[in-house]
Amino acid sequence: MGPHPAVAAIRLAVRRVLHDILNDLHASDGRHASAEQGPHERPPSPLVLVACSGGADSMALASALAFEAPKLGLRAGGVTVDHGLQPGSDLRAEEVVLRLRELGLDPVESTAVTVGREGGPEAAARDARYAALDAAAERQGAIAVLLGHTRDDQAETVLLGLARGSGIRSLSGMAAVSGGPGAARRYRRPFLGLDRQTARKACMVQSLPVWDDPHNTDPAYTRSRLRHEGLPALEKALGKGVVEALARTAQLSRDDADALDTWARQAEASVRDAAGLLECAKLYALPPAVRRRILRQAAIEAGAPAGSLFARHIEEVDRLITGWRGQGAINLPGKVVAQRQGGRLVIRQG
Amino acid sequence: MGPHPAVAAIRLAVRRVLHDILNDLHASDGRHASAEQGPHERPPSPLVLVACSGGADSMALASALAFEAPKLGLRAGGVTVDHGLQPGSDLRAEEVVLRLRELGLDPVESTAVTVGREGGPEAAARDARYAALDAAAERQGAIAVLLGHTRDDQAETVLLGLARGSGIRSLSGMAAVSGGPGAARRYRRPFLGLDRQTARKACMVQSLPVWDDPHNTDPAYTRSRLRHEGLPALEKALGKGVVEALARTAQLSRDDADALDTWARQAEASVRDAAGLLECAKLYALPPAVRRRILRQAAIEAGAPAGSLFARHIEEVDRLITGWRGQGAINLPGKVVAQRQGGRLVIRQG
Repeated sequence: MGPHPAVAAIRLAVRRVLHDILNDLHASDGRHASAEQGPHERPPSPLVLVACSGGADSMALASALAFEAPKLGLRAGGVTVDHGLQPGSDLRAEEVVLRLRELGLDPVESTAVTVGREGGPEAAARDARYAALDAAAERQGAIAVLLGHTRDDQAETVLLGLARGSGIRSLSGMAAVSGGPGAARRYRRPFLGLDRQTARKACMVQSLPVWDDPHNTDPAYTRSRLRHEGLPALEKALGKGVVEALARTAQLSRDDADALDTWARQAEASVRDAAGLLECAKLYALPPAVRRRILRQAAIEAGAPAGSLFARHIEEVDRLITGWRGQGAINLPGKVVAQRQGGRLVIRQG
Repeated sequence: MGPHPAVAAIRLAVRRVLHDILNDLHASDGRHASAEQGPHERPPSPLVLVACSGGADSMALASALAFEAPKLGLRAGGVTVDHGLQPGSDLRAEEVVLRLRELGLDPVESTAVTVGREGGPEAAARDARYAALDAAAERQGAIAVLLGHTRDDQAETVLLGLARGSGIRSLSGMAAVSGGPGAARRYRRPFLGLDRQTARKACMVQSLPVWDDPHNTDPAYTRSRLRHEGLPALEKALGKGVVEALARTAQLSRDDADALDTWARQAEASVRDAAGLLECAKLYALPPAVRRRILRQAAIEAGAPAGSLFARHIEEVDRLITGWRGQGAINLPGKVVAQRQGGRLVIRQG
């Protein structure tokens, strides 16, 4: 008798990602742990870490990694981040370490972070967490870090991006593969196609104790409100397929945004004159979607902070091209100024 | 004392669109109603119709058109569609005709339609309505038809598109300008940037009686559930700016989708061999977003109905290019078959 379907599903998802990681590794380093080396020269097996909060998603992920990694000649390790935001979070982290060890993971470590305030409580916690995960991966020499985000998390992320109204890049959610400093494809999200319920079920049938983070049900957090009120109401109105549709939207939007960024990068050189200034007539001839990406990039290169540069800023700059009636200089965040001068668009720190 | 701010807002929105319509008209026909013609040769002033259900949005629109059109040398007319879906809808339509006449609109007509069942009750009603509006515009020789959709309607349309999960085209909502048969820019939506509350307020302060369509509050309709439950819950979770963010997403997605369609059209010729077959190696080199658009278009040209062709179909065809391992022919809707043969992708009716 095979494993429970939920366990089979989480293992399959992890196995696929481990294969991808090995393919990347072999492509980048043909000499890795090859059979030609003598046994005493053989380097230790490559290490894959799981980032684990002790919640159902990441505990399920840890269990699947513990099961699949050895079969592919990989070591499985774990790291848990103590955000220090709740009393007793240090004990909690130690408990997660023990559970990961019980699953057979080695090495396992707990790392404490100090969460700042920049960008709001959720963004600050996320920034601190990824910095700690990056450091742990470097310290342990891990070739990858697995993250337990599910399709439900992805759907929530798309809705959060939708609320910003800043275009398709913010609709593209989390990437299945993303980078950290010095490691372009460090983070992997094997469960992006799996629902939260499957992860929870897999923990249950494997008798894995899980911890429910009280933040996840605290209505002070936007994501928590979305999870417990917003998305259920949307499902009630639009039908049960909403989560899947949002996740699919993320993937399609990501591909579309990537393609348009590529186009804008290529077109950018062709709209500059010999002095490197942007020519308004050439910009005008481009599709609005491409033109606005070039304008946005030019503003960022001039010193405007990407996070403060909104669609309405770019629209105003765009009107210097498409609705020219002699308007004056436009002030952008970061003291950047955009103005039209003799058929050229000049964007620079004012 | 000027008009109430809500009335000023609806009039400004209509005035801008009437200017656009006149610009289009002059661009397409330099001879129109010019001062060089003698008075007895002058053709009647161009006619702009408003499509009016008697609800607050379209009654506000009708009032603003009645006020603005004569100032720009345009005639303002109205048409109301009797969908025959509720008892007494014919009397209701007659009442709307009277109200439009009271506003000074001329000509005004009521037109009855038979709503089929194709695509569900909402789609069937919409199809019947636009066919009737097209016919009315032709019959009256109107140069444009104004529609009362507001920013709130736009936000709902984006969410409905999101629920389909079929990519950014379905997120792009309703266009400010769209076509009918034989008239590429017939329909105009002056209120897409205005909220529903402003339209209602404008009716109130002008003492215009409005009719609340019971369908709009009937939870049997998806849009009604979205309006009264889904969107309010989303606003509660994400904040009051959600409607505006959704409307902005619509515009950005539309521009992005247009640009990518253009790219795909241009790239399409370059990936065909001398015999006109799609070359897999050349398709492979394109960004996924562009490649999938080409594949989708090829499937439609081979006879697959666009409405039945989902993202998952195109993904499967795409794997013939990106994940080739000798898989067999892929069946698409409309009895279309896609298969890889000798490095070429053949898509045709099977």
